Amino acid sequence: MEKKCFTWPIRVYYEDTDCAGIVYYANYLKFLERARTEWFRTLGVHQQENMNKGLNIVFVIVGVDIQYLKPARLDDKLEVRSWIGELHKASLYFEQEIWRGDELLVTARVRAAELDSVTRRPKPMPDFLFNQLTEYKK
Amino acid sequence: MEKKCFTWPIRVYYEDTDCAGIVYYANYLKFLERARTEWFRTLGVHQQENMNKGLNIVFVIVGVDIQYLKPARLDDKLEVRSWIGELHKASLYFEQEIWRGDELLVTARVRAAELDSVTRRPKPMPDFLFNQLTEYKK
Amino acid sequence: MEKKCFTWPIRVYYEDTDCAGIVYYANYLKFLERARTEWFRTLGVHQQENMNKGLNIVFVIVGVDIQYLKPARLDDKLEVRSWIGELHKASLYFEQEIWRGDELLVTARVRAAELDSVTRRPKPMPDFLFNQLTEYKK
Amino acid sequence: MEKKCFTWPIRVYYEDTDCAGIVYYANYLKFLERARTEWFRTLGVHQQENMNKGLNIVFVIVGVDIQYLKPARLDDKLEVRSWIGELHKASLYFEQEIWRGDELLVTARVRAAELDSVTRRPKPMPDFLFNQLTEYKK
Repeated sequence: MEKKCFTWPIRVYYEDTDCAGIVYYANYLKFLERARTEWFRTLGVHQQENMNKGLNIVFVIVGVDIQYLKPARLDDKLEVRSWIGELHKASLYFEQEIWRGDELLVTARVRAAELDSVTRRPKPMPDFLFNQLTEYKK
Repeated sequence: MEKKCFTWPIRVYYEDTDCAGIVYYANYLKFLERARTEWFRTLGVHQQENMNKGLNIVFVIVGVDIQYLKPARLDDKLEVRSWIGELHKASLYFEQEIWRGDELLVTARVRAAELDSVTRRPKPMPDFLFNQLTEYKK
Repeated sequence: MEKKCFTWPIRVYYEDTDCAGIVYYANYLKFLERARTEWFRTLGVHQQENMNKGLNIVFVIVGVDIQYLKPARLDDKLEVRSWIGELHKASLYFEQEIWRGDELLVTARVRAAELDSVTRRPKPMPDFLFNQLTEYKK
Repeated sequence: MEKKCFTWPIRVYYEDTDCAGIVYYANYLKFLERARTEWFRTLGVHQQENMNKGLNIVFVIVGVDIQYLKPARLDDKLEVRSWIGELHKASLYFEQEIWRGDELLVTARVRAAELDSVTRRPKPMPDFLFNQLTEYKK
């Protein structure tokens, strides 16, 4: 079976850059989150808890390991590519990359924990989500 | 002749919101600029000066008058609508609005001056741009 | 009686600048808000509602009219100066300026409405606050 | 010899938070950079290259490994504590922590490369800087 990858386009605007002429290092984390958000939206999980009737889950980022290989610049068209690294019932690693054409600019490993949105305790994700995410394991 | 309007979609992400649960008031200015940038791209004017061979112009924002009518929230799909208010050879007013469906959330009047990118002095914009912008006068 | 002015220092970091080499136009609104927040803290009004036992008020920004006179740059030491323009029981105008030494960089007029934090309806501010703010009328 | 630690205070404002009610995960990277900038300023190295007469060096962040242990919230007074992890002539690791009182909220390991600001090639840092940084090795 072919591994799936979720891709999301990003355009670089002035707001993203700094006076070194490149994208500010914290802002790549925004790009990574936009991609994760859009990915989960396609899987039926919304960021706004009240849109997830009955799910009562929330993903919390507990760690990010990011490598800056080459800088992105104003007006660049980027692509965020996302996979699952490790997948557990109540936690997972995202593997994400940011590309500009065929140049790899950034790689990141993002660790998320899944919590019950009411009790804030670890809670296993529902099967419909776990099964879908399995197809994206790198 | 029908007046033209440039429209650009915006999705609200976590990065845009604050702990009052709504989009942070400064971040609407980012949305407005993304729309202006995309609009000018369609008119053949890029933000990166080196892509504007021979133009040597740069637009500088000198004033913003913005009214916050209703707040935008996480996951909202917004639309920025942009027109020209006043149009002079070396300065102009943008009229911009941010909508969520049929609700008007934000109105803004943004004043820009046009400068020579080398001398940083006022410089009339080229006719090809002035003529195109005329069609967007509100 | 001498008019009071609240002053607050700001240092410009990479995060504040853009690839034009200057502070990004939306980020001055962050500086203005930091100054208002620190000012109100000295007057006994906190941003976190739960620290304002019994007050149940929240200030909402409903409009900003900002003029960019000169740009701020990386490492600049700025000073935000704040006064009250108009003062009503349930709304007010802030008059704010951003200075670098003896150079005036930005002027802004910020309109705020005061709401009951529960009902979200207009609510007169308490006398202790109104009286203190009166001393800062420009 | 006692190990040195550079500490820098941070106040959390609305701009730093998101609608989950906590500081947005990318914004801690801004706090970390403010602390590194202020630290290096005390060591005689400025961010603005033109203030470093003759140095011709620039530090580039090439990797960040950050762990989010507990969230910071609006109005929190934080403290960033910074040390050197590994120190080489043309690269180094910063070890940084963000504390709220006696609670450790964030730990980060930030890798920086030192480049010649003209050629953009690796360049050993000057002795005056290397020697000072040695005192901050954790």
